[in-house]
Amino acid sequence: MPPHGFSPTVPRARPAGPEDTVGQKQERLFLRPIGRMDREERGPMPDIKFDVVGIGNAIVDVIVPVKDELLERENLPRGGMRLIDEAEATRLYGMVGPGLEMSGGSAANTIAGLASLGSRTAYIGKVRNDQLGGIFRHDIRSLGVHYEVEAATSGPATARCLVLVTPDAQRTMNTFLGASVTLENSDVDEDVVRSGSVLYLEGYLWDPPAAKEAFRRSMAIAREAGRTVALTLSDAFCVDRFRDEFRHLADDGIDLLFANEAEIKSLYQVETFDEALQQLRHRSRIAILTRGEKGSVIVSGDEIHVVDADPGVTPLDTTGAGDLFAAGFLYGFTRGFDLVRCAQFGAMAAAEVISHYGARPEASLAEIAKQRGLLKDR
Amino acid sequence: MPPHGFSPTVPRARPAGPEDTVGQKQERLFLRPIGRMDREERGPMPDIKFDVVGIGNAIVDVIVPVKDELLERENLPRGGMRLIDEAEATRLYGMVGPGLEMSGGSAANTIAGLASLGSRTAYIGKVRNDQLGGIFRHDIRSLGVHYEVEAATSGPATARCLVLVTPDAQRTMNTFLGASVTLENSDVDEDVVRSGSVLYLEGYLWDPPAAKEAFRRSMAIAREAGRTVALTLSDAFCVDRFRDEFRHLADDGIDLLFANEAEIKSLYQVETFDEALQQLRHRSRIAILTRGEKGSVIVSGDEIHVVDADPGVTPLDTTGAGDLFAAGFLYGFTRGFDLVRCAQFGAMAAAEVISHYGARPEASLAEIAKQRGLLKDR
Repeated sequence: MPPHGFSPTVPRARPAGPEDTVGQKQERLFLRPIGRMDREERGPMPDIKFDVVGIGNAIVDVIVPVKDELLERENLPRGGMRLIDEAEATRLYGMVGPGLEMSGGSAANTIAGLASLGSRTAYIGKVRNDQLGGIFRHDIRSLGVHYEVEAATSGPATARCLVLVTPDAQRTMNTFLGASVTLENSDVDEDVVRSGSVLYLEGYLWDPPAAKEAFRRSMAIAREAGRTVALTLSDAFCVDRFRDEFRHLADDGIDLLFANEAEIKSLYQVETFDEALQQLRHRSRIAILTRGEKGSVIVSGDEIHVVDADPGVTPLDTTGAGDLFAAGFLYGFTRGFDLVRCAQFGAMAAAEVISHYGARPEASLAEIAKQRGLLKDR
Repeated sequence: MPPHGFSPTVPRARPAGPEDTVGQKQERLFLRPIGRMDREERGPMPDIKFDVVGIGNAIVDVIVPVKDELLERENLPRGGMRLIDEAEATRLYGMVGPGLEMSGGSAANTIAGLASLGSRTAYIGKVRNDQLGGIFRHDIRSLGVHYEVEAATSGPATARCLVLVTPDAQRTMNTFLGASVTLENSDVDEDVVRSGSVLYLEGYLWDPPAAKEAFRRSMAIAREAGRTVALTLSDAFCVDRFRDEFRHLADDGIDLLFANEAEIKSLYQVETFDEALQQLRHRSRIAILTRGEKGSVIVSGDEIHVVDADPGVTPLDTTGAGDLFAAGFLYGFTRGFDLVRCAQFGAMAAAEVISHYGARPEASLAEIAKQRGLLKDR
């Protein structure tokens, strides 16, 4: 049995009883997160149909290579995501060269990565019934992802993110949330959420007020159904906007916390990575911390693993690196692999996506995993 | 003075007189194409503002890697372009995986390549006022290309080409012409055509009937103004559809003929490349024949040059190879370079575009040319 104690692709095992030894404490903690009801209290659960259900802002990326000067001139925080209105989107778009349009959106990228690995997935996010909305829908569905949220027939256009990629492969994102702000409770299909082993939520959802409500509601549904709830902090500036609420979530409510170094430091308002790390120890949830070329650190109760990044990768565009790390990790997690192997899957998926423009894999991640021998039993 | 006798970036020199020696015959032929009026008869000419003015179907490409089986199952002619209606576009799109959206269109790709090399360019082609039309307009304008054709406010959506890329890097194109069929005479700005040193036309324009009229009219304007008229045959199946008319054009009306091996064989309905080559000799215009990895052959009167392709290129997607060869060639041509050097520029530009997905250069072609020493005087 892997260290985290169960394979979430099958209905969760009953909580461990008092016969557990001290050595299994961490498993027990994870199996009984604070506030989670016992299986008996919940009544019958629906079948698991999806390994992961993702909820996020449905966005089409417009990827444009730019020089550093543009960021300086426009005073754009390098590597961050800022929200812009349509006028600013138009102004900025007018200043840059030709783009490459691809479906994006943080949780949607993770779901696309999981689909590429062969996981069963569903996605919830809102587009409009326009051309970019059609592209988003086609792309995610063509991967076999269950995506049935109806497109808005009025209101703002499908969300766009102008991704400015500098020569250091860093991406600076400028998001016009458009139709994604109209995601609301009624767009969340309860049955879909209930039939997902893991519910994966992006912190960005806290920006559109209605989407935040959809976030809270789907989290409640998943918890009620005894599912695993995962959150990615999304962005250091996003953490800045919602620090108190995210801290509360990280302490009580979620089982898996994904964050990069800047985000976790922002969450705990500390100067060093290690200070953040100490804050995360001895908790009931697993924290997955990504550090770019420095690899990743996984914290689960008393357990800490430091896992290397994939060597020999020349990054061209880091857009989607965190999203794909989460995809690889969740792929392993929902198969019951140990945490180190989960992180190795994460590193592999992230390495693929940073080797080309765009935030979704170009190659089959399942193929790469097979070639690397990552799928061998061990 | 280069073999083709003039540098079209400046107003054309007066036609050579009877003092010409026999050795200059080919130049004389080129300087006095059949049906072209002498400078004196034309009256004052507007200034040259553009090196090349391109006219074509304004299309956004949807690039999708596919397996060979799909082409077989759907019975699609590999490497060709077929026209499809919106229903078929939707059906086929529903069968393929996630795509990459990029501005395309044959002549537009050539113009984008010329802009990347530093040429002054203008483009004429029709989009609708929808999201993909906005992307097309942004992309071409952001390169510094003069593009002032108004978007259609009603009628079909912006044209899309579903580009299926097989593992051999071959692209098979499925084009829904959409708004591009609404290009008509009134969209052709006479002043723009007159102020271009070269008018570059794509054979694909013969598919939409109104566009064909715009083709004819702009050709007449350019000829009347004494400009160089260039035609690309576009596609062997396109040649099939309009063989008689294209043969007539190739014999009388155009100065530069661009074709690949399949197209030129289709034009003359011959079995071998050499038979086509013999048909092209001793004519007044220059033929630029591209042969993929076999390089190119340039025929001008009695002159024939066989030029190698760029070595060491691993093609990923050959979409735009011909378009970019034309861009490189025209760049050299409008600067008065000799034909071999023009073809070397063509090979360089084609090599860049086949090394990645999409039909437009990702790197600065001017930079590459500089690094290769192609811009040194010699």
